[in-house]
Amino acid sequence: MTVTRQGDGTYRLDGAYLAETYSVVGPLEGKGPLAEYFHRVWRDEGKRFPSFERAERALLGEAQDGAVSAMGIGWDGVDLVLGGDLLDQLISTNFAGRDHRRPLFGLFSACATFSEGMGLAGLLVASGGPRRVVVAAVSHHLAAERQFRFPLELGYQRAPTASWTATAAGAAIVTHEPGPLRLEAATVGRVVDWGQSDPNDMATAMAPAAVDTIRRHLEALGERPTDYDAIVTGDLGALGVELARHLAAEEYDLDLSRLDDCGLLLYDRKAQDVHNGASGTGCSAAVFSSYLVHQLRRGTWRRVLLVATGALFSPTSNGQGETVPTIAHAVAVGRGGTA
Amino acid sequence: MTVTRQGDGTYRLDGAYLAETYSVVGPLEGKGPLAEYFHRVWRDEGKRFPSFERAERALLGEAQDGAVSAMGIGWDGVDLVLGGDLLDQLISTNFAGRDHRRPLFGLFSACATFSEGMGLAGLLVASGGPRRVVVAAVSHHLAAERQFRFPLELGYQRAPTASWTATAAGAAIVTHEPGPLRLEAATVGRVVDWGQSDPNDMATAMAPAAVDTIRRHLEALGERPTDYDAIVTGDLGALGVELARHLAAEEYDLDLSRLDDCGLLLYDRKAQDVHNGASGTGCSAAVFSSYLVHQLRRGTWRRVLLVATGALFSPTSNGQGETVPTIAHAVAVGRGGTA
Repeated sequence: MTVTRQGDGTYRLDGAYLAETYSVVGPLEGKGPLAEYFHRVWRDEGKRFPSFERAERALLGEAQDGAVSAMGIGWDGVDLVLGGDLLDQLISTNFAGRDHRRPLFGLFSACATFSEGMGLAGLLVASGGPRRVVVAAVSHHLAAERQFRFPLELGYQRAPTASWTATAAGAAIVTHEPGPLRLEAATVGRVVDWGQSDPNDMATAMAPAAVDTIRRHLEALGERPTDYDAIVTGDLGALGVELARHLAAEEYDLDLSRLDDCGLLLYDRKAQDVHNGASGTGCSAAVFSSYLVHQLRRGTWRRVLLVATGALFSPTSNGQGETVPTIAHAVAVGRGGTA
Repeated sequence: MTVTRQGDGTYRLDGAYLAETYSVVGPLEGKGPLAEYFHRVWRDEGKRFPSFERAERALLGEAQDGAVSAMGIGWDGVDLVLGGDLLDQLISTNFAGRDHRRPLFGLFSACATFSEGMGLAGLLVASGGPRRVVVAAVSHHLAAERQFRFPLELGYQRAPTASWTATAAGAAIVTHEPGPLRLEAATVGRVVDWGQSDPNDMATAMAPAAVDTIRRHLEALGERPTDYDAIVTGDLGALGVELARHLAAEEYDLDLSRLDDCGLLLYDRKAQDVHNGASGTGCSAAVFSSYLVHQLRRGTWRRVLLVATGALFSPTSNGQGETVPTIAHAVAVGRGGTA
């Protein structure tokens, strides 16, 4: 088991494997193109709960419990939980900790939190410390809307560049026990802020962070984009993917023409009215824990680079006229562990 | 360099050293008993800044820059930054990342964030991954008051059990380079919630979490409280320290009579009107980075256990009638590295 520093912020991992994953999504997500890959689809947004926040917490709890159950272990077989959400003070992640009662490190990189957790889990497990780490992230459309934007009841019009915060949770277990899927490397993101300040256009703000991290990751490991069967960003959506491809080509001579994005994969943008695509901390967590891992398991792909992206602003910073700092964390997962 | 799992959530560390620390505090903190130990004291709460939030960010920036400068390295000598603050979406930590532009993992455990970061830095550096990690945390009294409670202008009366959010920042560099101070072990906290729901009394809520973590830490390492020259909790204050001592004695037959607390050390409770004591993410960060490290460096103490405590609620969860989940993370630092 080793961690090898490779360039600036990139680490090669040896001895960290991906065990089970579990995804739980809302009804809109369950009608999208990835429907068949999710482990559980809620019939509604959680109207049995007294608040949207309680619904979000339940969504996270189901994803975490699902991953632990799927592995055939109890919660006492888990050494550490890493996770986060979009709600102020991470109330979903922290309140869910009352149920599992396992050692917990709360994380926040907005919608990049899941790959922050996966990278960190890889680093920790490959170091011979914790043996099994649950990484989880969640978001709920209705809880996020009223915290970051307006109450739904206002019926305001969405901007064309706005993305749709997904009602989704994903959980993955990173383990020291050898298995077919391995965490190969992680790259820690840096804050990138090109001066965008429109809170209804996160894609333009986040695209440079995604390209920065992908470029650093590839350079550090001496790789090309084609060394991965899929490079999948977090929530850039239609506009952001286009911008990232252009930026990579023009500034760095890097061909990201095959770049895909969790925010594009989650919904059918023609049939579902989500404008730029999906976003939310749970988006990349759920897409990774379902579709991406499925492609690796069945052997359609051998290697995936997940690059979740986050917009690190708040309603307060926006109201104070600040621009939007962004970040992207990358984790490479591949077949090539021990079957 | 090794990390050794020792019991449930406790890790023995070999190869992680504490290099420089730096603390910056506000005027009230600078008039308290620890005045001589702080590296910088602001003359006012930052009235040169356009907002309290900008002041908080500047406080953090000064602490981080101070630690990096004190070590005689530039920011490019830093492999990773770990940190957090109390403001929604960690805007202090994340916006400060625009300046240093180093790989950043955002953390959140409320006022336990600094020891979360220290433990994590110990685990990562002892694994041979990142070589130098900056751990930092900040809070600002005026920014916290208006986010969590009321605008100061309201002039509301504080409850006797309420604590005073400190205007303070602390930064520490954890390095692979051997030095006189060593990170010996870390214990990851678990969420503890005994059903307290009064947002003006965090001490009662957090005391059980502190005892849980101290007890687990000592048991895992086969240690007694007297093996440390000081066990210092985060922000329990007068009431919380008393409760923790009673709880430890009555439930676990554990003698914590010598327990001290960053929230008690920071202010002179007789001369300064802070009720239960200090709190805030920056409190334990600044007290550790000044007074506690000073005691270790001069040899007054050989070993310190820092157990920062956090109340993981939000104004939303409180408004929804929820109780307050809490957590405490511990890190043991001692002389016994290579001089």
